[in-house]
Amino acid sequence: MKIYRNPEKSEWPVITERPNPGSDEISSTVREVFDEVRLRGDEAVRDFTLKFDGVDMPDPEIREKELASAGDALTAELRNAIGIAKANIARFHEAQRTPDLEIETFPGIVCGRRQVPIQKVGIYVPGGTAPLFSTVLMLAVPALLAGCDEIVLCTPPGPTGRVDPAILYAARECGVTRVFRVGGSQAVAAMAFGTSAIPRVDKIFGPGNRFVTEAKMIAAARGVAIDMPAGPSEVLVIADDTCDPAFVAADLLSQAEHGADSQVILLTDSPAVLAAVEKEIDSQLARLPRKEIAAAALENSRLVLVRDTAEAVSLANEYAAEHLVIASDEAESISHRIVNAGSVFLGHFACESAGDYASGTNHTLPTGGFARAFSGVSLDSFCKH
Amino acid sequence: MKIYRNPEKSEWPVITERPNPGSDEISSTVREVFDEVRLRGDEAVRDFTLKFDGVDMPDPEIREKELASAGDALTAELRNAIGIAKANIARFHEAQRTPDLEIETFPGIVCGRRQVPIQKVGIYVPGGTAPLFSTVLMLAVPALLAGCDEIVLCTPPGPTGRVDPAILYAARECGVTRVFRVGGSQAVAAMAFGTSAIPRVDKIFGPGNRFVTEAKMIAAARGVAIDMPAGPSEVLVIADDTCDPAFVAADLLSQAEHGADSQVILLTDSPAVLAAVEKEIDSQLARLPRKEIAAAALENSRLVLVRDTAEAVSLANEYAAEHLVIASDEAESISHRIVNAGSVFLGHFACESAGDYASGTNHTLPTGGFARAFSGVSLDSFCKH
Repeated sequence: MKIYRNPEKSEWPVITERPNPGSDEISSTVREVFDEVRLRGDEAVRDFTLKFDGVDMPDPEIREKELASAGDALTAELRNAIGIAKANIARFHEAQRTPDLEIETFPGIVCGRRQVPIQKVGIYVPGGTAPLFSTVLMLAVPALLAGCDEIVLCTPPGPTGRVDPAILYAARECGVTRVFRVGGSQAVAAMAFGTSAIPRVDKIFGPGNRFVTEAKMIAAARGVAIDMPAGPSEVLVIADDTCDPAFVAADLLSQAEHGADSQVILLTDSPAVLAAVEKEIDSQLARLPRKEIAAAALENSRLVLVRDTAEAVSLANEYAAEHLVIASDEAESISHRIVNAGSVFLGHFACESAGDYASGTNHTLPTGGFARAFSGVSLDSFCKH
Repeated sequence: MKIYRNPEKSEWPVITERPNPGSDEISSTVREVFDEVRLRGDEAVRDFTLKFDGVDMPDPEIREKELASAGDALTAELRNAIGIAKANIARFHEAQRTPDLEIETFPGIVCGRRQVPIQKVGIYVPGGTAPLFSTVLMLAVPALLAGCDEIVLCTPPGPTGRVDPAILYAARECGVTRVFRVGGSQAVAAMAFGTSAIPRVDKIFGPGNRFVTEAKMIAAARGVAIDMPAGPSEVLVIADDTCDPAFVAADLLSQAEHGADSQVILLTDSPAVLAAVEKEIDSQLARLPRKEIAAAALENSRLVLVRDTAEAVSLANEYAAEHLVIASDEAESISHRIVNAGSVFLGHFACESAGDYASGTNHTLPTGGFARAFSGVSLDSFCKH
């Protein structure tokens, strides 16, 4: 981790710089996938699944029987946890419904606004190092509440062609209409164009690796809506001397272990907090099951000593973090000065992980500074007015 | 105009096909503009203004003095009309404000949502065949209501380097903070990257020609938010035998005269209405001041005889029109079956032009079928949650 002490404002651009993704090679691969899927449909999807995922998938759709029995493979504890998370997410997103609007702007002129669900939505759930059933909940619950007609889910098959049953169970619990074991840019291309097996959708949601992200940008340029541009995950913590350094370190590490390209930043006006958090990171890191990933992410990360809370707020607004944790007794009042952030976690016990899974807020949030202009996913993301 | 009588569903893709824009040549020109503006800033903007607009503009910013006196060049009638339109737009957009949300999703877990203005927004106002002061109202009024800190407006200089005073007057009335006489893709690039003279913005709004549209897509791919993808303007009218064919024809023509690439479509279940509208179009077209433009647009246009209202609704949802006019006594009930449309105009007297200028609804709407997933511009477009 890089440590900055009372940096000048001229150093802010370096402090707020994101790890640089993007490569022309990825872009040309994904363009080829799009061209092939457009031309050859399911056949191209099958070829790319064999090539990239190493499994042959003549029929990519997961049938009702497999979906219905997926819960049997889970512990009762996990099923129960999924139920609680689902209920909280539903409660928070249901509260976002806006009533129809009708006003007379001028004598005899009545103008109105109606919220209508997007008809067909596609949800991408990544495979990789952990089964992201939480992403299923975060996207399918609001889609179901919005009233979308068709909720299509694509997720990559594992090496044996199977999909984690927690993902299938969550999909079925949340009313997903069709599930396909197709991943990567070929899944995005299939949902963008439609194939015989996989329906074309009006909007594509969900996180993914650089290939998926690039595929979503290409889909967007070709007229299929996407939730938002995506990049590596990140957290910025503002902590003052009321914080518990062990909790702050845990929050930073919980983000760092998401992926080697994650970025975590601490802003504090207390030299003692900075030193204590640094020490806690070292000792907690050693005990993490995913410590290699977290250690790699910490390379992109910063501990910054600022002059006061006002400077922390300015720098946080400049950075526009996906996740902003305010570890302070004054969290509520500080939050009113925040103008750029995806999701804000207030106080010593509002850990980012709560929002990642089960508090009820959405975890699909703008990264990479996009919080300057984008909101996280909400009920509205599945509607038009 | 092409006439279809009781087309089979297999013909719908042809009926709903948009005139094809897009060209690689435009894309490579715009990419060059972006690269140059990024590297050379204001100098590149000045070079492209000289090249594309034919005027040398050493200082592109329009100063307070010119803005303050712009109203003097307008008639009192126009100033008054702008005032009425502004008030109606403000009334409708103010009503869209959503209150802060706070709910306890689980004992002890409080989740909330707050609407915060985007800090810096850019508005593009096209030059061309008519001064679009209405676009200034449609974008600057909600930006002002949202509370955006900085509202930057770019619009191309005319052949003498001047900007239409109606645009400047509207900008000043609506609280635009800075105005630049810069147009085309160089204006979008300047707002995306920022130059010494022109500030970088977080989100770019506004219509434009194909170069501007392409520039906005490139800006979006590079991380600057845009209002929505844009294409040629269009209207679809559903009319039954309760309509006044002269009004329907006028609505179709008012859209056709927007530009040669506009598209207008009539769906009716009445052969008599179809014949009468066709006749009215011929006779009204001859009297239009912009008849060449309208006649060219009618080439891309269709009169379609459908079996019944249900079929009209299905076809309209398939097309997902930017503007949908329902010229029927049953407009209200028909509108409840519409799921894809930008703005819907209900009844015999709700002409599209009212929404284009002054009824209060926004005229920045999803074209090209984007209404399947996008809403028109609203107060929310200038906010994040």
